[in-house]
Amino acid sequence: MSITTKASSRWEGDLRGGKGSMRLPSGTFEGAYTFKSRFGEGASEENGTNPEELIAAALSGCYAMYLANVLDKAGHKAEFVEAEATVRMDMDGGPNISASKLTVRVKADGLDEATLQEKAREAVAGCPVSKALASVEKTVEATLV
Amino acid sequence: MSITTKASSRWEGDLRGGKGSMRLPSGTFEGAYTFKSRFGEGASEENGTNPEELIAAALSGCYAMYLANVLDKAGHKAEFVEAEATVRMDMDGGPNISASKLTVRVKADGLDEATLQEKAREAVAGCPVSKALASVEKTVEATLV
Repeated sequence: MSITTKASSRWEGDLRGGKGSMRLPSGTFEGAYTFKSRFGEGASEENGTNPEELIAAALSGCYAMYLANVLDKAGHKAEFVEAEATVRMDMDGGPNISASKLTVRVKADGLDEATLQEKAREAVAGCPVSKALASVEKTVEATLV
Repeated sequence: MSITTKASSRWEGDLRGGKGSMRLPSGTFEGAYTFKSRFGEGASEENGTNPEELIAAALSGCYAMYLANVLDKAGHKAEFVEAEATVRMDMDGGPNISASKLTVRVKADGLDEATLQEKAREAVAGCPVSKALASVEKTVEATLV
């Protein structure tokens, strides 16, 4: 069994003067992006978004859900898992998404520090988005709340 | 030089009964997600989104921008590049984002069929999001408009 998901984007014009939009078919998001929102001043409500923000959101979202499940299977139901994903794009030698860092805060029933650290690493290795980003270096820093 | 982008997510509860949200710091998107919107009925305005939609949007957005630039450098300024990305997640053996397909429509100054096909393949190899998704099989189908 497999699940197929799609999304679409449109770009008009050249790299620096052009503009684009990315759209989720669920209707939950349509975001404008430009050279400025990606490589210039960065993403903001005024400038728009960029693909790297969406990658970071996908990674953090997948990770939070996955870690909550891993903890639950070990008997520690999560009150919450908060995950911030930072994605680094190196510009030397052409844009290259080289590294990511997950900063995680967890509150879960009966969870101790050592188990959290073990499960946090397990989730980096197992979360599907993390696995798909195979060429991207990954680090995780987990804190028990 | 490098560019750092971040986004954050929060998951509460277990896999099937819990709920989460993914948020872009630019303020352009905050999307709810659940087991149902990811593995069940799928994403919709009612159910919410899922990480794979964001991956598909990031891939299509990065690809459309990148291909427009590749074409521009070859003397073919794009009136538009439309890219739809389909992402397939195989469920056998645990969720695994295994394959993606880009379906592309291009209108650009003086562009011929052979050049489009060559540049479309070049953009799959060069777009940073495509490169980052290193373990994901990629195909592209490009049509000249």
